[in-house]
Amino acid sequence: MSITVPVSLSPRPPVFLDVVGIGSPLLDIVARSDDALLERLGLAKGSMTLVDRDAAEAIHASMGTTIQVSGGSAANTVAGIASLGGAAGFIGRIADDEVGALFSHDISAIGVEFEAAVVPATHEGSGRCLVMVTDDAQRTMATHLGVANGFAPSDLDISIVERSQITYLEGYLFDQPPAKDAMRAAVAAAHEADGSVAVSLSDRFCVERHRQDFLTLIEEEAELLFANEDEIKELFETRSTEAALDALEQIGIVAAITLGAKGCVVVTPSGRIDVAAVNVAEVVDTNGAGDLFAAGFLYGMTHNYDPARSGELGALCASEVIGHLGARPQRNLRDLALEAGLLD
Amino acid sequence: MSITVPVSLSPRPPVFLDVVGIGSPLLDIVARSDDALLERLGLAKGSMTLVDRDAAEAIHASMGTTIQVSGGSAANTVAGIASLGGAAGFIGRIADDEVGALFSHDISAIGVEFEAAVVPATHEGSGRCLVMVTDDAQRTMATHLGVANGFAPSDLDISIVERSQITYLEGYLFDQPPAKDAMRAAVAAAHEADGSVAVSLSDRFCVERHRQDFLTLIEEEAELLFANEDEIKELFETRSTEAALDALEQIGIVAAITLGAKGCVVVTPSGRIDVAAVNVAEVVDTNGAGDLFAAGFLYGMTHNYDPARSGELGALCASEVIGHLGARPQRNLRDLALEAGLLD
Repeated sequence: MSITVPVSLSPRPPVFLDVVGIGSPLLDIVARSDDALLERLGLAKGSMTLVDRDAAEAIHASMGTTIQVSGGSAANTVAGIASLGGAAGFIGRIADDEVGALFSHDISAIGVEFEAAVVPATHEGSGRCLVMVTDDAQRTMATHLGVANGFAPSDLDISIVERSQITYLEGYLFDQPPAKDAMRAAVAAAHEADGSVAVSLSDRFCVERHRQDFLTLIEEEAELLFANEDEIKELFETRSTEAALDALEQIGIVAAITLGAKGCVVVTPSGRIDVAAVNVAEVVDTNGAGDLFAAGFLYGMTHNYDPARSGELGALCASEVIGHLGARPQRNLRDLALEAGLLD
Repeated sequence: MSITVPVSLSPRPPVFLDVVGIGSPLLDIVARSDDALLERLGLAKGSMTLVDRDAAEAIHASMGTTIQVSGGSAANTVAGIASLGGAAGFIGRIADDEVGALFSHDISAIGVEFEAAVVPATHEGSGRCLVMVTDDAQRTMATHLGVANGFAPSDLDISIVERSQITYLEGYLFDQPPAKDAMRAAVAAAHEADGSVAVSLSDRFCVERHRQDFLTLIEEEAELLFANEDEIKELFETRSTEAALDALEQIGIVAAITLGAKGCVVVTPSGRIDVAAVNVAEVVDTNGAGDLFAAGFLYGMTHNYDPARSGELGALCASEVIGHLGARPQRNLRDLALEAGLLD
């Protein structure tokens, strides 16, 4: 399986997995909300805030009626790849409890090979993310990482990285010091095995907290980058999307920058490609839009698609997940892509 | 608050709650499925089967990726009434565990007064219902009642029944012997306090298992009945919906019989009223359609609506819940009803 994109993704022999994701396994607890609640809770709209268990319980108590659905940024992405028919794996840390069992069930049921680091049940428990969805379909998140907070190099199953074409890291991992070491180990193992590394910037505030780490990763290690407009502007400390895109072009990485309803732009060393968004009857919840865009794009890149068609597949996957509450696809994405003529 | 429907609902002084529901609190674990899986599991399509914890775990393992959402038939109904702005209560039995906490949160957050009988966490745990949704939007359920199976008269808070205009019983309770006694106690308390009793038939096979109990309840105790076509035909052991409706008319009860996409027919001693269904862009999951129809109808009946308008409100509430996975409303039903001109 070779990659035909005109950039320096490492060539490699046939592999067993298209993509392995590394990130925090989370159960999303989703409720509709209004702006007043976010203000009262002191949560920055559209962002992710880390909270401890007590704060999570207080926020939960103030939320309306909920649905629970497996989440986690990188986990959502590999779930999407599996739903497209790709070979995907996931590495993350859960506790031996009900929330961890639900997460494990869902990611395995969709066809992802889950290499779980399982620790005994504690008061902290498996990670959960409180997701408040406002009427403008924007989502604001308060995450209690639970035992995922301790994700460390010893939790990393290097063998699954070694047999993956792309190792995909969620930027949120930079918020967890031991996870940073695990990321470095994963990057080294991926490159050692002639694999490529993809990274998502995850969240504007996360970029603000770890700007230099992200820049180093992108300039020196990663072959692929996923971000939205806010995140990329934060990374390059500019108010101009154009200036941020120029900066990316200088680095020479392949970057897929999502622009919400305006679609996305794929930046490559040989130029930029604009991809339109897919129309959605009603945008209910944008949570997972970026994760599922990455799923389609990564599926394309590992299946000899050019960047334009990979972007179209990403836009299609994103369109499925924003039509309902929850960041995991409810439809079989392979069927949708076949209908849309994006898969053969 | 008086009831203007031309039937013998007991008149009563102003009350504190419009409706109190009594039933099994459940967490629904919902996944899309195909007919082949139902056959392999030996589950009758469209029905509810009671299973023990081991069987529930085996079924869960064979299901695809899931969402979790609070459920339980009577609980869904009172949640809908609260979402319409009505005053609603719920009585049910949960364990002191994560599933019970999620259920409690959701029903309280939507505005229902929840009188929980809470027992210590056990291996059985709080109740959960595995819901398999096929492409025809039909749902097939395997329910592990957990500690709800032990719901008994001692769990019944009579005072909440006494201050409710209508006491609403889900027919599924007949499957639990001690719950049968609790139902009888609730019926007696409701009538003693000049309240009315409503009952839903719940499930065709449940009616088959307890036909005589249902008939006695309907002929001698209840003022209001909710059922669908299959259930009412099963009750009167006929293949003809017309014959079943005639039999209901003989009994002299007010009955709202849902007919799926054909809407519903309200049977009253003074004649029948046909109510059209509300068009839905895409029917995703019919789970909760009957429960939410009952919510709108009961709200209407406790707010001086005539049966036709109560039926229209019921149809509107049902239309919201069948447009997404999960049997609890995701939109504020009061807002929807105001938009539709069904509330002032």
